[in-house]
Amino acid sequence: MTPELRVDGRRMVADLRELAALTSDAGGAQRVAWTPTWLAARAWLRERLAACGVAVEHDAAANGWALLPGHPGTPTLALGSHLDSVPDGGWLDGALGVVAALEVVRSAAEQGWREATLALVDWADEEGARFGHSLLGSSAACGLLDAAAVAELRDADGARFADVAAAHGVAVAAMPEASERLAQVDALLELHIEQGPVLEAAGRALGVPRGAVGVERLRVVFAGQAAHAGTTPLPLRRDAGAAAARLALAARDAAATAGGLATAGALRLEPGIVTAVAGRAELLVDLRHERQQELLALRAAVERAAREIAADERVEVEVAPLWATPAVAFDARLVAALEAAVAADRGAADADSGAAGADSGAAGTSDAGSRALVSGALHDSVAVARAGVPAAMLFVRSIGGISHNRIEDSAEDDLVAALGAYAAAVSAAARIVEPR
Amino acid sequence: MTPELRVDGRRMVADLRELAALTSDAGGAQRVAWTPTWLAARAWLRERLAACGVAVEHDAAANGWALLPGHPGTPTLALGSHLDSVPDGGWLDGALGVVAALEVVRSAAEQGWREATLALVDWADEEGARFGHSLLGSSAACGLLDAAAVAELRDADGARFADVAAAHGVAVAAMPEASERLAQVDALLELHIEQGPVLEAAGRALGVPRGAVGVERLRVVFAGQAAHAGTTPLPLRRDAGAAAARLALAARDAAATAGGLATAGALRLEPGIVTAVAGRAELLVDLRHERQQELLALRAAVERAAREIAADERVEVEVAPLWATPAVAFDARLVAALEAAVAADRGAADADSGAAGADSGAAGTSDAGSRALVSGALHDSVAVARAGVPAAMLFVRSIGGISHNRIEDSAEDDLVAALGAYAAAVSAAARIVEPR
Repeated sequence: MTPELRVDGRRMVADLRELAALTSDAGGAQRVAWTPTWLAARAWLRERLAACGVAVEHDAAANGWALLPGHPGTPTLALGSHLDSVPDGGWLDGALGVVAALEVVRSAAEQGWREATLALVDWADEEGARFGHSLLGSSAACGLLDAAAVAELRDADGARFADVAAAHGVAVAAMPEASERLAQVDALLELHIEQGPVLEAAGRALGVPRGAVGVERLRVVFAGQAAHAGTTPLPLRRDAGAAAARLALAARDAAATAGGLATAGALRLEPGIVTAVAGRAELLVDLRHERQQELLALRAAVERAAREIAADERVEVEVAPLWATPAVAFDARLVAALEAAVAADRGAADADSGAAGADSGAAGTSDAGSRALVSGALHDSVAVARAGVPAAMLFVRSIGGISHNRIEDSAEDDLVAALGAYAAAVSAAARIVEPR
Repeated sequence: MTPELRVDGRRMVADLRELAALTSDAGGAQRVAWTPTWLAARAWLRERLAACGVAVEHDAAANGWALLPGHPGTPTLALGSHLDSVPDGGWLDGALGVVAALEVVRSAAEQGWREATLALVDWADEEGARFGHSLLGSSAACGLLDAAAVAELRDADGARFADVAAAHGVAVAAMPEASERLAQVDALLELHIEQGPVLEAAGRALGVPRGAVGVERLRVVFAGQAAHAGTTPLPLRRDAGAAAARLALAARDAAATAGGLATAGALRLEPGIVTAVAGRAELLVDLRHERQQELLALRAAVERAAREIAADERVEVEVAPLWATPAVAFDARLVAALEAAVAADRGAADADSGAAGADSGAAGTSDAGSRALVSGALHDSVAVARAGVPAAMLFVRSIGGISHNRIEDSAEDDLVAALGAYAAAVSAAARIVEPR
């Protein structure tokens, strides 16, 4: 029997709060990649790891790696997430997964646990907040980076990414060499806040996504005729704004029918004034579905609706793809190991609850059924899974489903429960993942 | 029998083209009130009037007046519009009515026509393009100006209206004294481009609006919850953008049912990005109807729809009035005089057409029926009519219904026909309007 790792959830939470105090201001977390605050967060992590005898190295894409070697012949398990945040972000997005990995590595070092090589990973620039490219470091490691295009990205002040990266010791052309480090990994486990309301609505503290949705993002431009609000009878209008309003609602209807998601959160009307019918409307539509075929069918339905609405409103329409990424399933064995750990945690919570008599709170036992969960957001682990490395994630309940905001939060008991289940899954993975 | 005024439409068009050349650039007309180009336009008008022995004076609100006295005991007929334009505006909006009045006054002077005192009026700052207050000069003359508030208006560069007005010789506190000049007017006739597509769609060159629509303008703010586009299932969303889209369409439906207009041309979503459900949506709704009671019923229907949609989408809603002005009817006798002049022009065009055999073009004889026309836009004459002075307008067909744009245009033959009907109506008004 493999020895179980014992971890200290309260110590992890204390570390998270210390990191937040160090890297936040009144607006929230400010750990934007390629800024001094991000470097401060990474320096903090380096010191914490150094204190337990583990060194941090960086691959060619600035991803941070800290290895605690296991016994010979054991698998290499990557554990981590990203320290970088959006501007005015929350204390947990990304940081939770890195600090949880820190707690696991620290506990393993303290306990002499050597059932696997543990590779803490701190992916660089998951958010893409400064240069607009999400999943930057993990994409490079996964062979998905267009280095020449990335080199020329500019931030809001006009700074070129290649220059900023060079100042951080990164040669953009060499970033794809980060794949060499990832090639030494046998499996990846990432703990992350849900960033959505599903677990809260289900009354559950923890959940294991089966995979990640695919995304099809469209730019839809309707072109009608700008016209005076007072002099143009309704039947003579060619109202691009009305067409956009209809499409936003039609996309939502189509997504509801398909069991997917449609979001039309960006709409620009021109001239955009109260006294004029809009002559032009640009709507960005984000479509997601966990099954690739149904995602493509949803996109086709939205494109068809755009054309039908345009004809009905007597406006022109252009639909252009903005960005897409396919749906992917997480590794079935890792998902099963995480689900077993979550179930064990729920059982323990139930037992505690029975003993204490009244604690029906934190671990959320009201929905023992296996309500399906998928990852709807981008994560480094999704890129890694797409690259063929076995990967899975554990989600912890977000209060109000809110993220990318300073009020982002999870109950401390939920965080403690999440770390316990995560560590149990690491122990299980050490048994079931085969080393290369 | 009152002698008829004979006017020269081609001379008016030549004057309009000369004025446009003097006060336009590649972007269009630039006669924005309280700018050097506006003063240049007014200087041009002053020279033209001086050439026929008529002087221009300015009232306390900078409205320009040029009087050609009639025989004792004849009425005073005000004729005019505004020389100021929006930035990048068209050559006809406002300028047509002033230059038509110039041609009428000039012809009367040349012909010794003295059946009425003709008072050319060039209203100051109809567009409100620089300081945001439309109908500035006519509002002052009509006793509708809040001088203290207007004094503090600022332009985009921060200049204060009271200072700019003072540099133009206008004391803002004294602007309401402009009512003294208007009190000497017995009736007002304004020629203006339609700025809409109704006449063109009806195949008519000229039209006489029965009155002006009332306007109710609302700011509607929906407040839901910004949420991640990928992690928030549709049933858990509180989507302010979807609520706004539904209201824009509901307002249009309500206006169609009521026989009025609804325009939702300004919509702002927050955060306004492709990856987020909108947590806040601000929609400006402009409602218009020619009958005041039905306008108020339309507003009530839109407010009710906003509340119902908010409840259905589980978002909050606030509806605030932005601005309103009541519907008004033009003077029935003046409307009849203008309609008779238009009908006579149509008859003449038909006769010409029969004689020439093939000219079915300019004057547009395809729709002899009295299709109802109202003014949907703001005009100085509407303010004057609200103030109780008998007033009416004549509209000339706009190509494509387009205005406030450098491509704004009307066929030259239509402009000539319009001047003829306008002059005929002036002659008729001299007979039917009683002097004070």
